[in-house]
Amino acid sequence: MDKLAELRHSCAHLLAAAVMDLYPKAKRTIGPPIDNGFYYDFEFPSPISTSDLTRIEEKMRELAKSWPVFVRHEVSLDDARLENKDNPYKLELIDEFSKKGEKITVYEAGGFRDLCRGGHVADPSRVLKHFKLLSVAGAYWRGDEKNKMLTRIYGTCFPTKEALDKYLWQQEEAKKRDHRKLGKELGLFLFSTSVGPGLPLFAPKGAVIRSEIEAYLKKIKEKYGLTFVWTPHIARSQLYIQSKHWQKYDAMMPALRIEDDEYTLKPMNCPHHFQIYLMSPHSYKELPIRYAENATVYRYEKSGEINGLFRVRSLTQDDSHWFVQSENLPEEIDKAIDLAQQIFKTFQLPNYRARISIRDKGNKDKYLGEDRVWDIAEKELVKAVEKRKIKYELGEGEAAFYGPKIDIMVEDSLGREWQLTTIQLDFNQPKNFDLAYTDKNGEKKQPAVLHVAILGSIERFMAILIEHFAGAFPLWLSPVQVKILPISEKHAGCAKEIALALKKNGIRHEVDEANKTVGYKIRESTLQKVPYMIIIGDKESQSASISVRSRDGKDLGVMEITAFISKLKENIETYQ
Amino acid sequence: MDKLAELRHSCAHLLAAAVMDLYPKAKRTIGPPIDNGFYYDFEFPSPISTSDLTRIEEKMRELAKSWPVFVRHEVSLDDARLENKDNPYKLELIDEFSKKGEKITVYEAGGFRDLCRGGHVADPSRVLKHFKLLSVAGAYWRGDEKNKMLTRIYGTCFPTKEALDKYLWQQEEAKKRDHRKLGKELGLFLFSTSVGPGLPLFAPKGAVIRSEIEAYLKKIKEKYGLTFVWTPHIARSQLYIQSKHWQKYDAMMPALRIEDDEYTLKPMNCPHHFQIYLMSPHSYKELPIRYAENATVYRYEKSGEINGLFRVRSLTQDDSHWFVQSENLPEEIDKAIDLAQQIFKTFQLPNYRARISIRDKGNKDKYLGEDRVWDIAEKELVKAVEKRKIKYELGEGEAAFYGPKIDIMVEDSLGREWQLTTIQLDFNQPKNFDLAYTDKNGEKKQPAVLHVAILGSIERFMAILIEHFAGAFPLWLSPVQVKILPISEKHAGCAKEIALALKKNGIRHEVDEANKTVGYKIRESTLQKVPYMIIIGDKESQSASISVRSRDGKDLGVMEITAFISKLKENIETYQ
Repeated sequence: MDKLAELRHSCAHLLAAAVMDLYPKAKRTIGPPIDNGFYYDFEFPSPISTSDLTRIEEKMRELAKSWPVFVRHEVSLDDARLENKDNPYKLELIDEFSKKGEKITVYEAGGFRDLCRGGHVADPSRVLKHFKLLSVAGAYWRGDEKNKMLTRIYGTCFPTKEALDKYLWQQEEAKKRDHRKLGKELGLFLFSTSVGPGLPLFAPKGAVIRSEIEAYLKKIKEKYGLTFVWTPHIARSQLYIQSKHWQKYDAMMPALRIEDDEYTLKPMNCPHHFQIYLMSPHSYKELPIRYAENATVYRYEKSGEINGLFRVRSLTQDDSHWFVQSENLPEEIDKAIDLAQQIFKTFQLPNYRARISIRDKGNKDKYLGEDRVWDIAEKELVKAVEKRKIKYELGEGEAAFYGPKIDIMVEDSLGREWQLTTIQLDFNQPKNFDLAYTDKNGEKKQPAVLHVAILGSIERFMAILIEHFAGAFPLWLSPVQVKILPISEKHAGCAKEIALALKKNGIRHEVDEANKTVGYKIRESTLQKVPYMIIIGDKESQSASISVRSRDGKDLGVMEITAFISKLKENIETYQ
Repeated sequence: MDKLAELRHSCAHLLAAAVMDLYPKAKRTIGPPIDNGFYYDFEFPSPISTSDLTRIEEKMRELAKSWPVFVRHEVSLDDARLENKDNPYKLELIDEFSKKGEKITVYEAGGFRDLCRGGHVADPSRVLKHFKLLSVAGAYWRGDEKNKMLTRIYGTCFPTKEALDKYLWQQEEAKKRDHRKLGKELGLFLFSTSVGPGLPLFAPKGAVIRSEIEAYLKKIKEKYGLTFVWTPHIARSQLYIQSKHWQKYDAMMPALRIEDDEYTLKPMNCPHHFQIYLMSPHSYKELPIRYAENATVYRYEKSGEINGLFRVRSLTQDDSHWFVQSENLPEEIDKAIDLAQQIFKTFQLPNYRARISIRDKGNKDKYLGEDRVWDIAEKELVKAVEKRKIKYELGEGEAAFYGPKIDIMVEDSLGREWQLTTIQLDFNQPKNFDLAYTDKNGEKKQPAVLHVAILGSIERFMAILIEHFAGAFPLWLSPVQVKILPISEKHAGCAKEIALALKKNGIRHEVDEANKTVGYKIRESTLQKVPYMIIIGDKESQSASISVRSRDGKDLGVMEITAFISKLKENIETYQ
């Protein structure tokens, strides 16, 4: 357990102590550290709510003072059962530990004893200071809906006040920026019970963003030498039996039967792209061949695990498969990482780190592919990130049996990390599908395949972008780039002329012709996060100049309409 | 039966007479006229093949001379049975006619008698001249695979030599241009048994064409005020029960079960688009709202009916749904037809005609929607085509109960007709989905929906385009726009420089670096129908000028590379 997890685990004990002090009839169960905090599950004699958390938190602060240290006690099965005789949950755990032959231990601090395997801070009084209880939720005992529903209290704890404050700010800010909330307010996407959970529909404004992202990806990938293909969303299940996904991949959608055959919705594109590769024989001269597709795949996620656009059942991957001679792997890996960097830059995501999954060197036998090629690829993955000064960590032994990979985790404007890019080398699928090319000497060889997806799922990436920008997208991505606000009806003609000029130049715009004050219109447009507003009054109606405001409240002054349009076009073309 | 069908029906009799003369032991069955010709099915004592057709055709010409007229005989059941006593097929037909109480008739010409309901030319000797037997195929008696396999002879017949020659040329030319053959030769698309029949995959060159067509459609439709949306490829079956497709539409794909719900692949987009419309309430001020999507839908076609890209199971519709106040129907119908015309023009399809399906005026009760609105819509459909001088016919009584429609049939370069566009007014789905808007007076009203698909299926349209252009696509659609042909290795450097200049300008190109003669390279490039070739020799390597050839063999002379690029860009931007 790392230091932070120990801190949070100790804080969970402190929570349990406070609860038992305030609610002596409550029954405590388990309280582990988790990502970003900890929780503890209780059976309360009567329901509690978020409003009780302050009182519990105060009690925690009070008790913490008298928690100088955790003391570990090994106890006998009988003593453990006796100590917990009124708590059926703890008794269940004790019996399990004992059956497995594990030692039974209790950790004690400030007189509060709890059945526990350990992993605590050395000086709880000194370090258990910067914590906060966050929320109350229902949770089944051991996650099984057949069991009793317990009350889970979530909290978090950090080593410093600054870290706690930053986290709380991040949470608060994330709530304001919640893509589900903004998605509705900005009219970007929707879910419909008639269509089904996890199957987003994109309304015109959201579809603009999707389509701009896809068009940009196509453009930059073509510049990097990728060629786009198109494949259907279903295939005979046989294709996925051949790729072994059918047997191993747990998010396959159920099959459907057409005539005498079973078909399935594709959960990924690799086997489809291999069919295109197999269409004709290939010479080393043609390689590398890099097929790309922004393709919607379908994956079974449990309805309980579906979450906005973060986790959906229909997701559009910015997928690609690079068929490479092993001697060209270094330059191709370098190219893929370069491509990722370019894309992050465009989306104003300057901070990221990598995790490189390599072989367990002591156990080389379990891996497919030549030792020499693994070495080349692993070294290149490290070299490519080092030369770009990308922070990285090595996961030795974490590579899949079929090849090493690199994942890139990107930080958003709230400092949250998202795994976006995966570049996975694959020596296995080329074998499953008997992919081949003829080398210089006329011999049949097997290409390596690089699976390269930079953004992963476009839906999930849109959710990240919405929260990253709090809905205030850069100009090129904004569904409406300019809003024209005539002050009164008599300015409508002029507004239309300007609208026409914008249309001719391909600038997305709307005219707000409502019978409202200009102040109201400015507020509306600002809420809709439209980058620029053009306000049309008497003065503007009588000249070729316009008054422009930005969504962040700046008055950009009066300018010629042509100059304004040129500036916008330049910014749009350069993805600003 | 129209005149042409009578001619072909008589020709089928003549075929039967010739066959019976040459193969007295053959048993004849039925021989109807069909689109583009006729056939006759026989049971032959031993197999015949295409090589026998000449002999049969000669016999037909010989017999025709002594066929001055058809004579109709009414015969009794007994006489009919006696006359056909050795032919079980005819006996089966005779019994059926008799059971239905139909008169039994025999038609006789030149001594050849055949059981027949009639529909013949008056003067066979004079008009049965311009015919040709085309092919031999197997066909089950009455189309039922449980029955005996017969031999079908196909033929055609026209009133003039010119018409026959034109048809034969068309057939010959269509064979050469067959999109399945060209699709393979030009590397455009493929079918894979692992993916399944009717599910095309588009290789990079085909995907370029798809993507150019889709981008063009998006651009022009946005110009016409349509906004694009995106919807998933599956939905709960419930959505299609509500739209009543589930109950009535015969090409639904089978369902699949996810958790407790049934889902289906969408066969169309309307119900999905309605969900987006239903996302928020609408005012008359927002209308018309026009949602467009180039969306792949899945339809069950029997495997025997799948045909190249003409008939597939995964098809991408250039679909749109226009939500319209009834008072705006005239301008919206006009706009839709205008849009269609613009698109036909871009694809160099100047010839088309329309079919307008209207109500049966004598039976107005069976139609949904207001009488007044039907009148407006029907009149506007006629007005819109008349003012554009589009040839049209009216199909009275052919409208569906839920609204009138217009279909547009487009003629390709071989003179074949393809139905592409359908603009269907719909008063029914707005009811099924309770679509609404608030009118000027604050009252809730139901909008009319126009289903507008200009090209229908993009896959099918690609097949049509491939055959229309015989693979020689206009520049803007060509997967490779320019091929650079260095004469020898020492010109490779110069070829690369030119390639870079083309790349910078977004012009799709390839360099043919093979160690072959320039003559060979020109032939290859011509076969691949690449619009332009740049030939690089010593002279070109030493100057900024290049020699350009076109795919139709014209030497376009020497020009500056920059001038050539400007010209290409201009042509591409204007869809030439």
